[in-house]
Amino acid sequence: MKDSIIVLSGGMDSVTLLHDMKERIAMAVTFDYGSNHNAREIECARRQCGRLGVAHTVIELGFMKRYFRSSLLEGAEAIPEGNYDDANMKSTVVPFRNGIMLAIACGLAETNGLRHVMIANHGGDHAIYPDCRPQFVASMSEAMRNGTYEGVTIEAPYTHLTKGEIALRGKELGVDYAHTYSCYKGGERPCGECGTCRERAEALRFAGLPEE
Amino acid sequence: MKDSIIVLSGGMDSVTLLHDMKERIAMAVTFDYGSNHNAREIECARRQCGRLGVAHTVIELGFMKRYFRSSLLEGAEAIPEGNYDDANMKSTVVPFRNGIMLAIACGLAETNGLRHVMIANHGGDHAIYPDCRPQFVASMSEAMRNGTYEGVTIEAPYTHLTKGEIALRGKELGVDYAHTYSCYKGGERPCGECGTCRERAEALRFAGLPEE
Repeated sequence: MKDSIIVLSGGMDSVTLLHDMKERIAMAVTFDYGSNHNAREIECARRQCGRLGVAHTVIELGFMKRYFRSSLLEGAEAIPEGNYDDANMKSTVVPFRNGIMLAIACGLAETNGLRHVMIANHGGDHAIYPDCRPQFVASMSEAMRNGTYEGVTIEAPYTHLTKGEIALRGKELGVDYAHTYSCYKGGERPCGECGTCRERAEALRFAGLPEE
Repeated sequence: MKDSIIVLSGGMDSVTLLHDMKERIAMAVTFDYGSNHNAREIECARRQCGRLGVAHTVIELGFMKRYFRSSLLEGAEAIPEGNYDDANMKSTVVPFRNGIMLAIACGLAETNGLRHVMIANHGGDHAIYPDCRPQFVASMSEAMRNGTYEGVTIEAPYTHLTKGEIALRGKELGVDYAHTYSCYKGGERPCGECGTCRERAEALRFAGLPEE
């Protein structure tokens, strides 16, 4: 039964979730919030949805680039190099980004008669991003349930997995990771040095997949 | 101490709250989501902020008009006439609108070092709008606290007041209600027949203010 909308960035995690839950996903939404890597991510999201025949909507959130402060919105030079859990990666946080994306996806769910919003936050995100933690997801789900007629809720099945475990799941599902994009610098070729590139390479190695 | 951002529509309730809490409000945000009455509301919001010297930001949410279903977004003819609590007013609900506005205001608060988001939902809204009810506000506040570094929370001091009681408060504060706008049809003169016009007139009468 198709009862869900997925927040789909076009990166490894959400693309894996898309394939994992394709029987239940009626539509996917990708947010264009003006980050360095948005255009490449969106292209990956579109291609993956096309392959699975899932309806895909792109919503522009121009206000984020204009009014929010984050190195993710300031051009490739502003992105720190180093591991994902280093303090300098904190500069890449876009304040309450997941809260905003979930809220909009919730409105889309209610408008389209869907009951759940799926999101692919995972264990590796918890240290840096408060809006990826289990207690955030639980309370946001409760807010959505209370704030809608139909009691829309969040499903975040990867909350306690590592990115490596997600890649393993993707391997089982036959996900083509060549058509996912993660690099925070947003270049044609991933930089290999930013936190997301390092984390991605590590996850693919863990799953025994090529680090393309 | 200026520690808050307010979600300011430009209607009676949020304008009263703006005046009520002006010592604590560092900035106001108005959302342009493509409703019939947005342009007039925004003009009122701008004028009220100018008078009090409060910084004012307008954020456009074009996706709502494009992807959400609500009579509030469909032109004046679609707005039902009758009392606010009638079932037909349900067609004016914009799905999870307050959730979306609060989430964006939360991101703005975190970006600007503010601790609270103020919103003027009130008791009269509870029957129709799930995202105005106390349990929604409490759980959304918890989600924001969990999802931000600084633990941003919601303040909704009118949650248990009626609109009439808000008008009384505004009378004490000397709020000029001629520069607020509510009519859901969005005409130059309020229609007097839609739920919001009726509710506004009733509140002003309750407070012994002219029904301009």
